[in-house]
Amino acid sequence: MNEFIPVAWDGDAVRYLDQRLLPHEVRYERARTVDEIESAIQSLAIRGAPCIGVFAAYGVALLRRTIADDAHFLDEARRVRAARPTAVNLAWAVDRVLGADDMLKEAKTIHEEQIAIDEAIAENGFELIPKNARIVTICNTGPLATAGGGTALGVVIAAQRGAKKPHVFACETRPLLQGARLTILELQQAGVDAVLMADSAAAIAMKRKGIDLVIAGADRIASNGDTANKIGTYALAILAAHHGIPFYIAAPRSTFDFAIRSGDEIPIEERSAQEVSSFAGHRVAPEGAAVYNPAFDVTPGHLIAAFVTECGIVRSPYVESIPDLQLRPRVPIATAATR
Amino acid sequence: MNEFIPVAWDGDAVRYLDQRLLPHEVRYERARTVDEIESAIQSLAIRGAPCIGVFAAYGVALLRRTIADDAHFLDEARRVRAARPTAVNLAWAVDRVLGADDMLKEAKTIHEEQIAIDEAIAENGFELIPKNARIVTICNTGPLATAGGGTALGVVIAAQRGAKKPHVFACETRPLLQGARLTILELQQAGVDAVLMADSAAAIAMKRKGIDLVIAGADRIASNGDTANKIGTYALAILAAHHGIPFYIAAPRSTFDFAIRSGDEIPIEERSAQEVSSFAGHRVAPEGAAVYNPAFDVTPGHLIAAFVTECGIVRSPYVESIPDLQLRPRVPIATAATR
Repeated sequence: MNEFIPVAWDGDAVRYLDQRLLPHEVRYERARTVDEIESAIQSLAIRGAPCIGVFAAYGVALLRRTIADDAHFLDEARRVRAARPTAVNLAWAVDRVLGADDMLKEAKTIHEEQIAIDEAIAENGFELIPKNARIVTICNTGPLATAGGGTALGVVIAAQRGAKKPHVFACETRPLLQGARLTILELQQAGVDAVLMADSAAAIAMKRKGIDLVIAGADRIASNGDTANKIGTYALAILAAHHGIPFYIAAPRSTFDFAIRSGDEIPIEERSAQEVSSFAGHRVAPEGAAVYNPAFDVTPGHLIAAFVTECGIVRSPYVESIPDLQLRPRVPIATAATR
Repeated sequence: MNEFIPVAWDGDAVRYLDQRLLPHEVRYERARTVDEIESAIQSLAIRGAPCIGVFAAYGVALLRRTIADDAHFLDEARRVRAARPTAVNLAWAVDRVLGADDMLKEAKTIHEEQIAIDEAIAENGFELIPKNARIVTICNTGPLATAGGGTALGVVIAAQRGAKKPHVFACETRPLLQGARLTILELQQAGVDAVLMADSAAAIAMKRKGIDLVIAGADRIASNGDTANKIGTYALAILAAHHGIPFYIAAPRSTFDFAIRSGDEIPIEERSAQEVSSFAGHRVAPEGAAVYNPAFDVTPGHLIAAFVTECGIVRSPYVESIPDLQLRPRVPIATAATR
């Protein structure tokens, strides 16, 4: 984990770090109402599928404490659950809290489990990273993205701690530049050798820079391995296949949607034109420009060499190995404490 | 051609439009010295391989008029010739002017020929564009890029004039956003239906938006068809191949470097870190971030379905069809006037 605390329970609020302001400003906010919870998620102040799950879990627990009326509370919990459509962790976490007797305790458990899960993911992914590996990644999948130790970036940081000296080529990740702003920051903090590049430079990097592997996170994974993740991930998977480079996804079991058979069933959020046509309050494109701004894409399972989960490495055929994940035991929370 | 005049001879200077300020500000500048000529090229105030060629041709003709000493003049002409390494049109145009008795006349001829060449490219490419075609493109290849009617975008605009109603998905083209700033502007002026997207959205667009073809320009084409163009072009070619979509390059003969056998011999300019780590004067990445910022990549010829040139459509096997281009007659300048 790094020096930031992306989400924390704060007695009568959910405290969170506004990730939109990083790396230049570290500002913590407190969400107390459903409007504030929903807004923090929709504005991407809180982002990263597992982190959104943890935040929403605390948020629903908070709403239960502040709203006496059951019907009203359920309405507001459903608003939180629907704040963003693609990442399944959000709905998963809200449902889990709603089903618990002590909602706050359940939210804290989800958070503690995420920390343990991330450690298990990092440990399980360790074998996939060669010494001095040159790694391409996209978006941010470190501690800021999970409220634990991170998924894909957690694997990379563990490789660094294990003296493997990974070298990361980080895609800047347009339009909101989570790669440039957050991933570079977390890699600097972890002492990992890292280079920032435009998303469009990934192909020439694979051709000329001796890239050994690509590793990314996920927002929702279907039963056949089709994986929704940050826009640009699908391109990286195709480019990796073209160059004969393995492409991995690191994600907790809560990101798998066992109820859907393929990526065709994953709703893809389209976000505002302004994210692409403007930057930092500056208009870039001419007035009146129409914009296509899907926040995610879907990488078909056949382009994914393996999934790194807290239950181990999951390999093809995914239609068998992914449903099997449901039968595995939970990672014990003690994992984190006993290390 | 559009309402802008990217380059013009101005008596005792080369007048040019500072394309860095578009679409928000239309500011013309005058280059009078080798420093100003070199700076306009290196800063990307003037950009687009054919446009750089026209500008440099006028620039060298101007230097010849202002510098009496032959050795000094040749030194400065060589500085202009070496201002950027990748686009071959720059060296080609300088050499052509240096070899002429009347350098200013030769520069004007190069400019007039470019206008005629672009018309021929647009005419030759017309057959490749189906009715209602959905087209992905990258960077800017319209009138601003050539000081004529454009190459790849010239083909698209001709299709619009020919009532084919093309629909363009324009990659914004990080890091300097020529797609967002210039291509969208030119398509608006030409009345072409256009949508702006992040470069990383091209893959999902190809999968879900019924893309019929990709067309791009070029900065240098080797004898075997390997093509250097704006960073991100190579990725588009791989993505197009993966989705079974034809990928075309539109470029004048002056962009072909018949002296080199493959793309391995094309020097790739790497530009400053700040282009990626900052945006519109705002720092994006954390201080100290290392950056990989190649301005171009090389698309292997085998991923290119055809080249659209002023001499016609050039198809594989390129090792035969590209050298053959040298034998074709020049496009007569009259083409433009007699239409």
